[in-house]
Amino acid sequence: MTNRDALTAYIASFVDELAQNKVRHAVVSPGSRSTPISLLLAEHPDIEVHLNVDERSAAFFALGLAKALGEPVAMICTSGTAAANYHPAIVEAYYARVPLLVLTADRPHELRYVGAPQAIDQIELYGKHVKWSVEMALPEQTAEMTNYARTVGARAVATAALSPAGPVHLNFPLREPLVPDMKKAKEYRQESSAVLIEDGVRTLAQSHVKALASTLIEAKRGIIVVGELKDDSVGEAIVALSEQLAFPILADPLSLLRSGTHKQEQIIETYDTFLRDDVAKEMLNPDLVLRFGAMPVSKALLLFLKKHHSAKHLVVDDGAGWREPAGLATNMIYSEISTFCSDMLNQLSGIRDLTWLQRWQAVNTATKEALYSLRDDAELSEGKLFLLLNELMPTHSTLFVGNSMPIRDLDTFFFNNEKQIRTLANRGANGIDGVVSTALGVSTVSEHTVLAIGDLSFYHDMNGLLAAKLQKKNMTILLINNDGGGIFSFLPQANEKEYFELLFGTPHGLDFAHAAALYGAKYNKVKNWEEFGQVFTQSFTIPGLKIIEVSTERESNLVKHRELWNFVSQEIKDVLS
Amino acid sequence: MTNRDALTAYIASFVDELAQNKVRHAVVSPGSRSTPISLLLAEHPDIEVHLNVDERSAAFFALGLAKALGEPVAMICTSGTAAANYHPAIVEAYYARVPLLVLTADRPHELRYVGAPQAIDQIELYGKHVKWSVEMALPEQTAEMTNYARTVGARAVATAALSPAGPVHLNFPLREPLVPDMKKAKEYRQESSAVLIEDGVRTLAQSHVKALASTLIEAKRGIIVVGELKDDSVGEAIVALSEQLAFPILADPLSLLRSGTHKQEQIIETYDTFLRDDVAKEMLNPDLVLRFGAMPVSKALLLFLKKHHSAKHLVVDDGAGWREPAGLATNMIYSEISTFCSDMLNQLSGIRDLTWLQRWQAVNTATKEALYSLRDDAELSEGKLFLLLNELMPTHSTLFVGNSMPIRDLDTFFFNNEKQIRTLANRGANGIDGVVSTALGVSTVSEHTVLAIGDLSFYHDMNGLLAAKLQKKNMTILLINNDGGGIFSFLPQANEKEYFELLFGTPHGLDFAHAAALYGAKYNKVKNWEEFGQVFTQSFTIPGLKIIEVSTERESNLVKHRELWNFVSQEIKDVLS
Repeated sequence: MTNRDALTAYIASFVDELAQNKVRHAVVSPGSRSTPISLLLAEHPDIEVHLNVDERSAAFFALGLAKALGEPVAMICTSGTAAANYHPAIVEAYYARVPLLVLTADRPHELRYVGAPQAIDQIELYGKHVKWSVEMALPEQTAEMTNYARTVGARAVATAALSPAGPVHLNFPLREPLVPDMKKAKEYRQESSAVLIEDGVRTLAQSHVKALASTLIEAKRGIIVVGELKDDSVGEAIVALSEQLAFPILADPLSLLRSGTHKQEQIIETYDTFLRDDVAKEMLNPDLVLRFGAMPVSKALLLFLKKHHSAKHLVVDDGAGWREPAGLATNMIYSEISTFCSDMLNQLSGIRDLTWLQRWQAVNTATKEALYSLRDDAELSEGKLFLLLNELMPTHSTLFVGNSMPIRDLDTFFFNNEKQIRTLANRGANGIDGVVSTALGVSTVSEHTVLAIGDLSFYHDMNGLLAAKLQKKNMTILLINNDGGGIFSFLPQANEKEYFELLFGTPHGLDFAHAAALYGAKYNKVKNWEEFGQVFTQSFTIPGLKIIEVSTERESNLVKHRELWNFVSQEIKDVLS
Repeated sequence: MTNRDALTAYIASFVDELAQNKVRHAVVSPGSRSTPISLLLAEHPDIEVHLNVDERSAAFFALGLAKALGEPVAMICTSGTAAANYHPAIVEAYYARVPLLVLTADRPHELRYVGAPQAIDQIELYGKHVKWSVEMALPEQTAEMTNYARTVGARAVATAALSPAGPVHLNFPLREPLVPDMKKAKEYRQESSAVLIEDGVRTLAQSHVKALASTLIEAKRGIIVVGELKDDSVGEAIVALSEQLAFPILADPLSLLRSGTHKQEQIIETYDTFLRDDVAKEMLNPDLVLRFGAMPVSKALLLFLKKHHSAKHLVVDDGAGWREPAGLATNMIYSEISTFCSDMLNQLSGIRDLTWLQRWQAVNTATKEALYSLRDDAELSEGKLFLLLNELMPTHSTLFVGNSMPIRDLDTFFFNNEKQIRTLANRGANGIDGVVSTALGVSTVSEHTVLAIGDLSFYHDMNGLLAAKLQKKNMTILLINNDGGGIFSFLPQANEKEYFELLFGTPHGLDFAHAAALYGAKYNKVKNWEEFGQVFTQSFTIPGLKIIEVSTERESNLVKHRELWNFVSQEIKDVLS
């Protein structure tokens, strides 16, 4: 029994166990120490390997795959700073509740803490941002130790997926030789998992259900607030509950409720605009707030909720966390969401007064019409871009948006529609990093993926585009270029003129046509909306990566947003009086 | 007394204290939460601010500055994944013993653990890879708390710089408003540091000095091995000691001993080549090894030392660490190096037999002549490139080399010379990441900086080039392009043909002319050595960033290295017999 046999048995068993537990994708970054795991992942017929050289991008690519699939995706890199490059995506996955299996190769114990090359302290490298962190045993061939490798593998997949989902880190100390006996890998394939892990559904006791239903029934002016959700079916349950209660749903663009075939009358989507209006904020006064999912993007909504802090505030969190930055929760409810909704529905009956709901609907309709006025604007602008996306996105498609401005513009301008447009973003930690790679990961398993992204965020993860080039990914990138960090123009920092451009404006003057050429993307910088419409629509018929650049002006963007808010305030006055 | 006044007083005091403690450079990444620190760093007349958008590159840029200057450099970023992007450079700084002041802005306590945007758990974010990690108090204006900010600032600078130098992390929770009163910043400037921190020199007791000197005197066949050193003066002390002992110095290319005006007869620089030869390994048998600095790059040297494991093995570490991956140390000596050398010299006298030293010198000379044979080779190759650099580098210049192959080629082909060429690399964790930015940081405070780097490593940190564009850095990049990870061709993985290119070869097919155009670099892809010589020499007369691409062949590179080793073995036979 050689070291090589032990390596083969141990790692092949582990990899097979991942496959048995339905891990279908692994993102590999090249390296030496990670060789056995990379090779055996590539060898396994049920696992698809995606190469990604830059580990930072690789981890975000895995995040995108896992986000789109809703299932754990594995990633593997070599020892040293490679593993540290995973950190940003792991942080995002932890807060966004995305299941990831982070595998890092490490030097064995005798090469640690002695200045050996590429040896860093990888034990608990990701600190509090993983759900579970395991320093694996050295490879051994005994039945006990291959079973150990299998069991940890099965547990890792399950732990990553359990609600709240998140990343799990397994650190593998590996000795030379690092090349397993590939011909023997098949011997370690099994028919089923070494251990079946069965998880229950978080369900409230009947006494709690009754008490909460009474609270809902007593509310005269309830609203439902839905943040990012991962699953359409959950949304449908919420809509059914809202109909019975005659509560409006304030649906974040990532709730997946603004697009689809469910009843759309319940969905209020322009609240981010009209809740900036003082009269609206005053008149639409809720006595109960029922929240699902993450806290929505809208700052106007947050301020509105804080203003009405005396309302009952129920937060339903299926992951038993604490996504409540407003500090308003009166009830924190830990239940699976569909189960909670049907539990409530079972207690409710009768027809509710619709006046309250209708008031929200009227304001929403008036706001939407006012926002539509932007359609007549000839100038290229971020707002109109998102308005047009409602019409131009293919029926079955995915829209991934960057942080800072794109997610906010999506919030303002992405209206209810009957298409099946899946809207996604990295809202765990809201970073501008890794967005290109996350979207590419999504595009790998989704139809017609569009990424709308600002120039700084695009620049931050241009390295991610190498995967698009090498693996011939199909994706359309809308590159919204205002030559710097547009969001800072909205903040008080903008008044410190002496230092603003140096520290915040960050005009980079990059001509992204060169980036497109580097990565073999088809590139168009559009001059007007007509050209945009043509190029965008066409992009779905062309294979590969397409970059459509839309240049906007920071100053004029700011002015336009402010004008529009004022116009909306005028338009909704009648409805509110 | 407003929150804004407290913010101004507290942060301005802290920043002034950094300046009082001789922090001269700060690398700023744009962000909102970090505004007060960024603005006040920019405002301080004694601190130069360097903008760097991508926090991963920013941190490596700061590392480069700190490495070149040998003094702590500050860096500041906003909350969230931005801070996680610092991680790779911090790991490198920790192991490379480079002093860094890592400042991260954070959300205040009431916005933590509640799903607030860009709020992650930043306390001890870098785990065991910082020397000190402090969660700062919230800003307050009292004398006690501004003094606290100053004291922590002074301690942080001192702690980062104390041997072994390394990164220190200060995490600043900050509330809105985030814009300080810039007009009042001057009020918080002082004439001197709040506290003077005075550190002694690590010096051995006289009894130890005597015992160690006896050990050295008794050795018949001693060798001195010098790895990466940070300081020329230390090198001179080692050379003086080696002369007295008549021990050869096996000098790593990062020892700074291969270039300079000191006595070069003592310096053996081609050991990485001739110690591959079995006869040489046998005949050059030391009975004592005296090591300074980090473990050298050369694997041949490591195997040679392991072969002669019965030799006394003395490791002198001024940082009281454990840089001894060979597992051979018989004495671990914690002393400042110059002090150790003069302590020893004081105990030594008389003239030693030179036979042993001369044997090394003869083999070294013969090897060097054999290696020079590569000069006649017309084909572009990595080896000859480094051979030419001996001649073509300006007299006062800095040569930064990438990991994987460039550092190894430097080791083989960078010969003793009387120029003042400073050779640097990231050898803390030996990553291929962040190398471009580290070199740019170095170039900011150095004359005629050349970066020799492989294509994968260049690709990994192309983002770093934005700083070169925006801040008009002068640097020459030698881009050694073999279209993928050349080093893996030297490893056993290369035999797994079915998976090799997918997982390791990683041919990317990138045309880096586009990257040069994107970042406004002058670009030449040279076709032959004559053109290379011209373009390279010219590059020092042209301002800005110059990229000179040299295409090499992975397969032929491998064959050439092996042929050369065989040729050397032939050539040194006579000398050894």
